[in-house]
Amino acid sequence: MRPSGRAAEALRPISIETGIAKHAEGSCLIRMGNTEVLCAASVEGRVPPFMRNQGLGWVTAEYGMLPRATHTRGDREAARGKQSGRTQEIQRLIGRSLRAVTDRKAMGEMTITLDCDVINADAGTRCAAITGAWVALRLAFQHCVNNNIMKAIPLTDHVAAISCGIVNGDAILDLDYAEDSAAGADANFVLTGAGNLVEVQATAEGAPFSEAQFLAMLDLARDGVAALVAKQKEAVGL
Amino acid sequence: MRPSGRAAEALRPISIETGIAKHAEGSCLIRMGNTEVLCAASVEGRVPPFMRNQGLGWVTAEYGMLPRATHTRGDREAARGKQSGRTQEIQRLIGRSLRAVTDRKAMGEMTITLDCDVINADAGTRCAAITGAWVALRLAFQHCVNNNIMKAIPLTDHVAAISCGIVNGDAILDLDYAEDSAAGADANFVLTGAGNLVEVQATAEGAPFSEAQFLAMLDLARDGVAALVAKQKEAVGL
Amino acid sequence: MRPSGRAAEALRPISIETGIAKHAEGSCLIRMGNTEVLCAASVEGRVPPFMRNQGLGWVTAEYGMLPRATHTRGDREAARGKQSGRTQEIQRLIGRSLRAVTDRKAMGEMTITLDCDVINADAGTRCAAITGAWVALRLAFQHCVNNNIMKAIPLTDHVAAISCGIVNGDAILDLDYAEDSAAGADANFVLTGAGNLVEVQATAEGAPFSEAQFLAMLDLARDGVAALVAKQKEAVGL
Amino acid sequence: MRPSGRAAEALRPISIETGIAKHAEGSCLIRMGNTEVLCAASVEGRVPPFMRNQGLGWVTAEYGMLPRATHTRGDREAARGKQSGRTQEIQRLIGRSLRAVTDRKAMGEMTITLDCDVINADAGTRCAAITGAWVALRLAFQHCVNNNIMKAIPLTDHVAAISCGIVNGDAILDLDYAEDSAAGADANFVLTGAGNLVEVQATAEGAPFSEAQFLAMLDLARDGVAALVAKQKEAVGL
Amino acid sequence: MRPSGRAAEALRPISIETGIAKHAEGSCLIRMGNTEVLCAASVEGRVPPFMRNQGLGWVTAEYGMLPRATHTRGDREAARGKQSGRTQEIQRLIGRSLRAVTDRKAMGEMTITLDCDVINADAGTRCAAITGAWVALRLAFQHCVNNNIMKAIPLTDHVAAISCGIVNGDAILDLDYAEDSAAGADANFVLTGAGNLVEVQATAEGAPFSEAQFLAMLDLARDGVAALVAKQKEAVGL
Amino acid sequence: MRPSGRAAEALRPISIETGIAKHAEGSCLIRMGNTEVLCAASVEGRVPPFMRNQGLGWVTAEYGMLPRATHTRGDREAARGKQSGRTQEIQRLIGRSLRAVTDRKAMGEMTITLDCDVINADAGTRCAAITGAWVALRLAFQHCVNNNIMKAIPLTDHVAAISCGIVNGDAILDLDYAEDSAAGADANFVLTGAGNLVEVQATAEGAPFSEAQFLAMLDLARDGVAALVAKQKEAVGL
Repeated sequence: MRPSGRAAEALRPISIETGIAKHAEGSCLIRMGNTEVLCAASVEGRVPPFMRNQGLGWVTAEYGMLPRATHTRGDREAARGKQSGRTQEIQRLIGRSLRAVTDRKAMGEMTITLDCDVINADAGTRCAAITGAWVALRLAFQHCVNNNIMKAIPLTDHVAAISCGIVNGDAILDLDYAEDSAAGADANFVLTGAGNLVEVQATAEGAPFSEAQFLAMLDLARDGVAALVAKQKEAVGL
Repeated sequence: MRPSGRAAEALRPISIETGIAKHAEGSCLIRMGNTEVLCAASVEGRVPPFMRNQGLGWVTAEYGMLPRATHTRGDREAARGKQSGRTQEIQRLIGRSLRAVTDRKAMGEMTITLDCDVINADAGTRCAAITGAWVALRLAFQHCVNNNIMKAIPLTDHVAAISCGIVNGDAILDLDYAEDSAAGADANFVLTGAGNLVEVQATAEGAPFSEAQFLAMLDLARDGVAALVAKQKEAVGL
Repeated sequence: MRPSGRAAEALRPISIETGIAKHAEGSCLIRMGNTEVLCAASVEGRVPPFMRNQGLGWVTAEYGMLPRATHTRGDREAARGKQSGRTQEIQRLIGRSLRAVTDRKAMGEMTITLDCDVINADAGTRCAAITGAWVALRLAFQHCVNNNIMKAIPLTDHVAAISCGIVNGDAILDLDYAEDSAAGADANFVLTGAGNLVEVQATAEGAPFSEAQFLAMLDLARDGVAALVAKQKEAVGL
Repeated sequence: MRPSGRAAEALRPISIETGIAKHAEGSCLIRMGNTEVLCAASVEGRVPPFMRNQGLGWVTAEYGMLPRATHTRGDREAARGKQSGRTQEIQRLIGRSLRAVTDRKAMGEMTITLDCDVINADAGTRCAAITGAWVALRLAFQHCVNNNIMKAIPLTDHVAAISCGIVNGDAILDLDYAEDSAAGADANFVLTGAGNLVEVQATAEGAPFSEAQFLAMLDLARDGVAALVAKQKEAVGL
Repeated sequence: MRPSGRAAEALRPISIETGIAKHAEGSCLIRMGNTEVLCAASVEGRVPPFMRNQGLGWVTAEYGMLPRATHTRGDREAARGKQSGRTQEIQRLIGRSLRAVTDRKAMGEMTITLDCDVINADAGTRCAAITGAWVALRLAFQHCVNNNIMKAIPLTDHVAAISCGIVNGDAILDLDYAEDSAAGADANFVLTGAGNLVEVQATAEGAPFSEAQFLAMLDLARDGVAALVAKQKEAVGL
Repeated sequence: MRPSGRAAEALRPISIETGIAKHAEGSCLIRMGNTEVLCAASVEGRVPPFMRNQGLGWVTAEYGMLPRATHTRGDREAARGKQSGRTQEIQRLIGRSLRAVTDRKAMGEMTITLDCDVINADAGTRCAAITGAWVALRLAFQHCVNNNIMKAIPLTDHVAAISCGIVNGDAILDLDYAEDSAAGADANFVLTGAGNLVEVQATAEGAPFSEAQFLAMLDLARDGVAALVAKQKEAVGL
């Protein structure tokens, strides 16, 4: 029995509420159990300097955590004057994941920035951010189509992410904070709607793990992402 | 007729929802029309170095705005590596306002930090932050009393804030963004439940204003704050 | 009797010496008692990027304090690597105050930067900075007229500032450091030569203050600013 | 045929030269083809504040690249005033990888910092850094044993890392820069001497990749790391 | 004939006015022609961490330039967020020069910080700063003796500095800005009252210079410093 | 007898190995005893903004030290977020020294950046950097000539540098770390192949030094630089 009492393959309750950021071209609040992330997509009619004149669009992300999203208050990164290595690692991951399912040629020389801000944290914030950011991105693309800025939504597939871990030797899905703290290994899987891999990140927190354990996590992740993709479809009305 | 169609003395619809930040000792989401600010209070059992060994508590605030809280996306301050002058000005104001109604001696050598994060901005964010922060602060003090950390809630009064402006020569209350952009003068009044002044900030955006106009704004503010104090009482169950 | 022995409505001895910064287009050293601020105006033939192509000029200010302007040495902000919130608040105030009496359309797309550096501090430095900066600004505009860069001096009025406070329940004018430390409330009033309000900032340092006390301070400020305006006229030869 | 002409499973020529940093307690220069990384271990008799009084040691890493290690000169991070997200991601990875094979309890409250500086870059620098850092770390532990600071070398196993990629649909091992630029997926595998997994990072640069492709890369990595471990043994005289 | 019309060995008019920084334990405004530097000494009853428990005092300096001390306005270093390389180079030079004539053992574990702020710049600011800082330092030591903090003034000699240059092939003393811009070599000599060398810095701005030219500058500097030392004596009443 | 046992005028063993930085247009590893500095020259086809449209080239330098180049590990400047005053002083010195022998007009509007990174430090790193940087610069110019980017190598002479010091009252050449720590005065001389002076920096670490001692150091330096120039010729095949 895992610490949360859930079955090894059970996700936490998930909801995706759209339209939360009133000015954004697309936005949602995604909840995975007690983890809540606000994802907002902003459309801009040009690309950053390093991307100019290539005929390609750019999709990027920024990630933040409200100081009291966590059990004990964390420093405000704006006050400290820099983003932590963890923050930068996560926002680079979100950006890469979304670009993997975007047809940047069809998009044209525009930028969409996804702001993923954690309101409440109970582990799995980067996975929730990726899953919610896809919804915000699709809504923003829909906005562009509705306003004749684009002809069609330049997305080739869904992308969503879920965490897995090894607790007491067994693979489990969608860890909460208590489980994450107890896990000997921690993995994040980013997959497409078609079930292909976009990103795999697995880390031994304590002892190294075996290939069999790794494959057990990958199996759980595949089903978890399929359920997340269904929630994304609902949220955007597909 | 003012731009929003409201009467000169009319506040926008106000709501205060508590318990939003699940880990915080006190929190609320305050809405004033389309302005939404999440206020979270964090209790810490010590004071910052410059306050040590004086037998006094410390109440301080930090303020932030999600990048897409506004019409066009703003830079993330954590990414830019510094807080703007405006941000610092506002968070200093929130801290001073709350300290003015706190009995810091009764509080003991503890710190409460109020994080005020703007989710959606439609003008008046600093006033909403002060009004909401008082609620979060009181809930946190209640938590301390409930847990035998303090004997009684060390607050001497309510404190709340409201903006006023001069539009087309007339004083109006609680400006939204469109009104704020059109205003010739912009003022923020921070008052106590007893009607005393804690802070006054009035600025001519265009032409200087007369003393009569200033006093008309002060009159509006007094009634506006009284209505906000009533909302605070409701929110904390007084 | 107030701590300094002055009457409630008495200013400290004031002097304004021009031409101190030898390279600046306009400059003065303003002394209010032991407070001394060097104000230097620099003219530049373009506006910052956010102001371009609007046909308007820009007037802005920077404020600094020499590390040993105060009783105990303060950190040098350049060495610490950032300006404090207080510094930014003050320099924004100075800039706003001067822009309120500048005809930015008549000025054309030029920038004037006012550097206000505190040589010695005995309270009231931001008020002295505003009052002195107006003198430096007018001298710089005169320089522009003399050199056929402008047709006429684009100032619509004087602007000057004075502090007030509540000490032992009574309103007093132009506080020195000892009085400022003892004051229950602290206010800065920025007024024009015509007696209109440009900026009001009042803060309860201890207990909140009453409206009557606030109005008593405003009364003192009106007379104080009138005296400062007379000194400005003398300094620029009007 | 892969771009470099090597067989899919062929490593580049590898050498590990020890004693390069003359003052360091352990050091080596690791070469993998044209990639050269200098790894230096520094021993300090205390742990950082967040680790104190837990009876555990700390192993951490810093990573840097000389500005002209690359085809075109990169900015010097010290001059820019901050480390890039990529740099932070890599140094966190190196630290985690080494901690996974360190018995931190046996080590006692000491810190070893691994500085991994890239002299020449031809892809695979993070993998070379991990593999070389293990050598520097073991030499530093040997130094501690020789000087009676530790009783035995507190390492539980080897750790080494290798990159893989998918080029033209096929998995290949140990990519050079030309191959890395052409790869559709890029993965780094960190494994122990016993063949367990410490860290897996796989990223789709272009199209998402299949599970079969992923497993083909994992197979190549297992053999590659075994060869690297043999080189490590040689370098430290095992 | 040199650009300024002065004889090769002629100093500019020099004055040293003490007591300018009202709160400082020692201060002066030194003028060398149109160059004006305010030097203020601050006494602190402890040494920085790296100097603790060695029984030695510490003398250090900070240097700054008001933004409009120069022909065209320079950036304010506090606003840019860092001190330039030039600023750091100069303040390190001032500190070293003063420590060379201070008996740090006799001084005890105290720190004196010299703030040298350039009010007006017409070349030679670092030399004026050193010469003025000695006066401020001696006044501060006198203050310590008068207040029984020290038994005797722990200075072993005077220290003063002067610039020299090669203009049109000839060595000249105490260059102003126009001469400095035209000079092929630029040197600063820091000497003691006894005529010994504390610091020599000579730089070819254009073509390298000969040893004979260098020695001609050194000859001029010796006499120049002797004259400065006489001014220092006057200023402190020796 | 000096601490190292060398004769007063004896240099340490010197070697200059070229081609170390594989991507750089010119590079070398210079060794002076145990001091090792990697110098890499990067050619860029434009000048920095402040140099544009003057028809002149630009030669500049950056200096760094690997954290464990020294006896005890130093902070990584990139991690601390700024370069020390010492680092900036040294890189400015290297750039000035090389510009003194470069015909910047013949060079055209191009930039060459010299990266000087200390691999191992045993005193004299800035002198080794200058001497090695000349070699890297010449190789880079040769590369430009070979690739028809320049018609001839735009160097007017060699430039090299050597340290001297006063130990036990006597002048000695090319100090190692132990000698440098014991020296009462420390000087760096930068000279051309023709024996002219480019830069002189002499500092009293303890007691001020006499003119005779200074001249004794200058005599040693002249011979030392001549030997370094011979090594440079060998390294570049002259």
